[in-house]
Amino acid sequence: MEAFSNSFRSDLSQLMRWRRDVRRFSTKPVDEALLMQCLDTFRLAPSVGLSEPWRIVRVTSPDARAKAIENYQTANAEALEGYDGEKAAMYSGLKLSGMQEAPEHIAVFCDDETTQGSGLGATTMPEMRRYSVVGAINLMWLHARANGLGMGWVSILDAPRLCGDLDVPPSWSLIAYLCIGWPETNSTTPELETAGWEHRHPDLHIESR
Amino acid sequence: MEAFSNSFRSDLSQLMRWRRDVRRFSTKPVDEALLMQCLDTFRLAPSVGLSEPWRIVRVTSPDARAKAIENYQTANAEALEGYDGEKAAMYSGLKLSGMQEAPEHIAVFCDDETTQGSGLGATTMPEMRRYSVVGAINLMWLHARANGLGMGWVSILDAPRLCGDLDVPPSWSLIAYLCIGWPETNSTTPELETAGWEHRHPDLHIESR
Repeated sequence: MEAFSNSFRSDLSQLMRWRRDVRRFSTKPVDEALLMQCLDTFRLAPSVGLSEPWRIVRVTSPDARAKAIENYQTANAEALEGYDGEKAAMYSGLKLSGMQEAPEHIAVFCDDETTQGSGLGATTMPEMRRYSVVGAINLMWLHARANGLGMGWVSILDAPRLCGDLDVPPSWSLIAYLCIGWPETNSTTPELETAGWEHRHPDLHIESR
Repeated sequence: MEAFSNSFRSDLSQLMRWRRDVRRFSTKPVDEALLMQCLDTFRLAPSVGLSEPWRIVRVTSPDARAKAIENYQTANAEALEGYDGEKAAMYSGLKLSGMQEAPEHIAVFCDDETTQGSGLGATTMPEMRRYSVVGAINLMWLHARANGLGMGWVSILDAPRLCGDLDVPPSWSLIAYLCIGWPETNSTTPELETAGWEHRHPDLHIESR
């Protein structure tokens, strides 16, 4: 195997630290070739049974973007109702999506019924197809970040409604709604930690059997 | 933001190509400090609502390892029954896990009921907790590979039975059973492609809305 240098490994750790969820984007456009290069990392991702179950929808029309933003706003207002007192006040002050500013919106789906791979590895754990898609998204995230781009993963959404609005086949399930663009600020500290919502656990929970 | 060099970006692409699922391990032990360093990448992973829902079990006892291997063998024999003719013959010849040889077995779970993060981002899409765990596993996978280690993700398992055998809390669901060790061979071509089971699609499926 090709050896990787210590300097590469050190930069890789740094990249993983930088790879936080980004919600504050400038409106500066993303070069088309760079966006395609980011998406191309999907083709490097392992997938269960080599099923490559990822399906990608670029959301570019003003109508589709507006529906997705409205979907988020409704879901976020509903989520706020689940908190009381101080937590509710804090929640309402959080910026939880950069959908308005981010120049690029990418919705990523999993085709749960793909025949590619002939079901290998997905009989006992069919969720492995979705996990393969998540893995591919994470490669794209790192590639984007290595090029200075930020990515934000929006999960405060009514997924069935989004699937309907984007008119995707019934076998596709939403894995991620991604905002991509140039970050306005950079920090290795998660924004939820800075805002006082939650802090990271100092240790990793490891048990033995 | 710190700038990454072209040479780093090129090595990162190469690492992503190398990062295939490994099923052929030597029995050479993995240095404890290196294994802990790999697991430490979990702490760099983003997680929905900063919930850090990953839970890790090192499977080291001969009894627990034997039960996991037997679990795989049973599930794999059942999976074989789902294929006929040429596909069945091909399936039975595939090596789908390196559990026997791999020096390290790590089971990774998601605590679906963690209160960390106060549910933020996981009300509409509770599966985001599991996806956060998958993302963290992918960081570990890249870190391991950058150090020459191979990782294999076994999904041909009866997950509820494994959870019972490992005696984990009822709120934990199995995300991945990982084999870690030194690969015997290295290839950027997925083993299922080499074996003629499936080939990668030449293009990425991108639609627009």
